[in-house]
Amino acid sequence: MGTSLFPDSSNPKPLLVDGARLNKILLELAKYGRNDHGGIDRVSFSEADRNARQYVIELMKNAGLDVTIDAAANIIGRRKGNNADAKPIMLGSHIDSVPSGGNYDGQVGSAAAVEVAQILHENNQITRHPLEFVIFSNEEGGKTGSRAMAGEIETSELDIMTASGFTIGEGLRANSGDPDKLTKVKRLKGSIAGFLELHIEQGGILEKEGLTIGVVEGIVGIKRWSVTVKGFTNHAGTTPMTERRDSLVAAAQFIQAVHRIAKNMSGRQVATVGKITPEPGAPNVIPGRTSLTLEIRDLDMVIIDNLFKVLVKESKLIGEETGTQFAFDQFYLSKAALTDDLFRKVIEEETEKLGFSYTRMPSGAGHDAQSIAQLAPVGMIFIPSLGGISHSPKEKSRSKDIEAGANVLLQSLLTLDHQLS
Amino acid sequence: MGTSLFPDSSNPKPLLVDGARLNKILLELAKYGRNDHGGIDRVSFSEADRNARQYVIELMKNAGLDVTIDAAANIIGRRKGNNADAKPIMLGSHIDSVPSGGNYDGQVGSAAAVEVAQILHENNQITRHPLEFVIFSNEEGGKTGSRAMAGEIETSELDIMTASGFTIGEGLRANSGDPDKLTKVKRLKGSIAGFLELHIEQGGILEKEGLTIGVVEGIVGIKRWSVTVKGFTNHAGTTPMTERRDSLVAAAQFIQAVHRIAKNMSGRQVATVGKITPEPGAPNVIPGRTSLTLEIRDLDMVIIDNLFKVLVKESKLIGEETGTQFAFDQFYLSKAALTDDLFRKVIEEETEKLGFSYTRMPSGAGHDAQSIAQLAPVGMIFIPSLGGISHSPKEKSRSKDIEAGANVLLQSLLTLDHQLS
Repeated sequence: MGTSLFPDSSNPKPLLVDGARLNKILLELAKYGRNDHGGIDRVSFSEADRNARQYVIELMKNAGLDVTIDAAANIIGRRKGNNADAKPIMLGSHIDSVPSGGNYDGQVGSAAAVEVAQILHENNQITRHPLEFVIFSNEEGGKTGSRAMAGEIETSELDIMTASGFTIGEGLRANSGDPDKLTKVKRLKGSIAGFLELHIEQGGILEKEGLTIGVVEGIVGIKRWSVTVKGFTNHAGTTPMTERRDSLVAAAQFIQAVHRIAKNMSGRQVATVGKITPEPGAPNVIPGRTSLTLEIRDLDMVIIDNLFKVLVKESKLIGEETGTQFAFDQFYLSKAALTDDLFRKVIEEETEKLGFSYTRMPSGAGHDAQSIAQLAPVGMIFIPSLGGISHSPKEKSRSKDIEAGANVLLQSLLTLDHQLS
Repeated sequence: MGTSLFPDSSNPKPLLVDGARLNKILLELAKYGRNDHGGIDRVSFSEADRNARQYVIELMKNAGLDVTIDAAANIIGRRKGNNADAKPIMLGSHIDSVPSGGNYDGQVGSAAAVEVAQILHENNQITRHPLEFVIFSNEEGGKTGSRAMAGEIETSELDIMTASGFTIGEGLRANSGDPDKLTKVKRLKGSIAGFLELHIEQGGILEKEGLTIGVVEGIVGIKRWSVTVKGFTNHAGTTPMTERRDSLVAAAQFIQAVHRIAKNMSGRQVATVGKITPEPGAPNVIPGRTSLTLEIRDLDMVIIDNLFKVLVKESKLIGEETGTQFAFDQFYLSKAALTDDLFRKVIEEETEKLGFSYTRMPSGAGHDAQSIAQLAPVGMIFIPSLGGISHSPKEKSRSKDIEAGANVLLQSLLTLDHQLS
C-alpha cells in the first residue's frame, strides 16, 4: 500500500490507509509495557501508559493535529473542517490495557484513527466537519475519559485505587488531567455530529463465520444479581440422600438451567454464573446456604428482564423439588446503548464497496462508544479476534483485517462527513 | 425409676439404670461451656473441657471406680471382675464438643457408662470380666484418645493447632496426659474382651421410622477426592452460549450426577460435594477452571470404589458434552470398621427383651469405636436424634430414649460378660 487515490465521481477509487504503516504503529505501541508473555502490562496511569501516550501524541502532531489534553486526561487531536457551522465528528478508542493484556484491544482503533488523520493530512483532504481524534483515558479501569465527556463520573470514583498504584484522581493528575475540573470535560447532548470507533470483536463470531467486518448494532445492557440458595446444613455422613436439602445441589441445578435456557432461546442473549460460594464449605458438610452471581446481557433490556423472569420461575420449581429457597438481589445495571441506524447503513455500504464481507452483531463488551452514545449518534466497526481471545497476551487480530477495518473507518467517516448535517 | 432388681433365673427382672439420675447428669454436664444458643462450646483441651472432665472423674469415684488418666489424656475408671484371667470389657464415649456443639453427642454415651458403673456399684454386682469405663480424649478434634489406644497417632499430629488455642501435644499435657509417652497408651490386639459405645444417631432415620434403638452394623468408610474441571476462561459478554467451555456449568452437571446416582442406587451409600471454587471467580468471566470436593461413604469400601468408577465415567460424558476435562485426586481415606456379629445379636436380643423397637443401621459418622475395632470386637447402640440434627445447639434426644439406650447398654454388657470368654 502507501499509495492513496482521490475519489473520482465517475469511477470513484477510494482513499485508502497505509496498512503497513498502521501495523507498524501497532508494533511500536506493543513495546510500551511489553511483558514476558508477549502481551502488555499498560494499565492506565502507569509509566508505560504515560510513555505510550507521549508516542501517540507525537504521531498526532506529525499528522498535523492540534493536540490538547482535557481535564479527564483524554488526548484530543483536532483538525479543522471547511464548514464553520458544522459540529465535530469524533473518532478514536483507548490505549490503556488490563493487567496482562494484549496488543489489540483499544490499540487497533486508536492507531487506525491516527492513521486516518495522517492519510487526510498527506492528501490535504479537508472534511466539511471539524474532526476530533480522541484517545480516551482509563477505559479498562472504568471508562473515565468517555464517561467524563458524558457527565457520568461520580466524585467518589476519583478515590478508587487502580492497578497503577494511583487512585483515579491521582492518575488523572499524573497524566496531565485535572480531577477538580472534570465538569469542564462534559459535552452537551447534540454538540458532537457523530462518533466512530473501530475495535477488535473480543469474541469468536467473525472468525468462525469467516467474515471481515462486524457492524455493531449496539453495546449490550448488563444486569447482575446476587443469588442466595437456602437449604439445611447437615452431616454428610449421617444424612441419607433422600433426606437432604442440599443448597449446592439446588444451585447446581440452577446453573444448568441458566446455561440451558439462555442457550436454547432464540436471540443472542448470554447468561453466566461466574462465582459460587457454598457454606460452610467443608468436604464433609452438606452446604446449608450457597450464594452465586447471575449475569445476563442483551441489546434489549426487555429480553434481559424476560429471561430473568423465566429463571426465577425455574428457581421456584428447583426449590420445591430440592427443599430449598432462592432469593435474588440485583446489584449492577448497565443500560444497553444502540448504534445509530444511519451509521450502520453507511458502514455496511462502505464495507460492501471495499469488497469485504460483514454481519451485524451486538457488542457483548463495554466500550467508550457506550457513553458517547448519550451525546451523539455513534457507529462501531469490529474486526475478528483470532480464537475469540481477549484480555490476554494471546489476543490477536490479522494485519489484513486491521487494515480492512481502518479503511472501513476512513470511508465511513468520509461518507458521513457528506451525509451528516 | 431408681429401683433396681436383681436378675432372677426363673422370672428374670432385669437390672435397670436410674433414668432420672442419668438425665440429671446430662443437665449438669450441659453447664460446662454452655453458650448463648443453649448448646456448648467445650472443645477438647479448653477450660470448660477440663472442668467437665473433673466433674465426670468425681462421678466415677463415687461409683467406686479406680480412676486414672493415661498419656493420651483418656480418663479410665477401672472396676475389678471375679475372673482373674478375663480381659477387660470396655465401655465409654467422649465429652468434648465441636465449636458451638450440642448437649448429647458423646455425652449420652459417657453419662450412660458412668450410670452403668453406679448401678453395678449400688447393687454390688461384680462382673466376670474387669470393666474399664473410658472418657476418650479429643474425639472431635481427631479421635486422639481412641487412636492412641489403637497405635494410630502420628507424631506430627501433636503439632496440630486445636480450637482450644493449644496444639494437641500441649492440650494433652494440660489435660494431665503426656505426649512423649503416647506409645505406652497403645493396647495390644486381643487385650480387650470387647467394647460397647452408646451414642446419638446424629441422623434422622430412627426418628423418622419411629424406632428407639439402632443396632450399628459398623462405621462407614470414607474416601475424599479433589476434583478439577478444566474448561476455557472467556469474556462473559462476547462469548456466545454455544461457544463456551464453562467449567462451572460442567461442574454443576457433575454435582447433579453425584446426587442423582448416589440417591438412585440401592444401598445406603452417601455422596457429597461440600466445597466448590470456580476460577477466576468474577461475575463477568466464564470460569476456565473449577475445583470441588467429592466425598463418598459406605460400610463397604467396594461400594465406595464402584460408585466412584460410575462417577468418573459420568464425568467423561459430561466432559465430552461441555468441552471440559475432569481430573480426580484422592486426598483422604478412612476405612470402614464393622461391629462384631455376636455384639449385634446380643444388643438386638436385649433390646427385644426390654420391649424396645430397633433396626440395624450403619453409622455415617466416625466414632471412637472405629479405632477400638482394630483391637477388639465392638458393639454400638444408637438412640434417635430429633430432626436428625447434630453438631449444633439444636441437637436433642428425648430423656426416655436416653434411658432406653442406657438400659440396652447395661443389659448387653451383662449378657456379653457371660458369653465372652
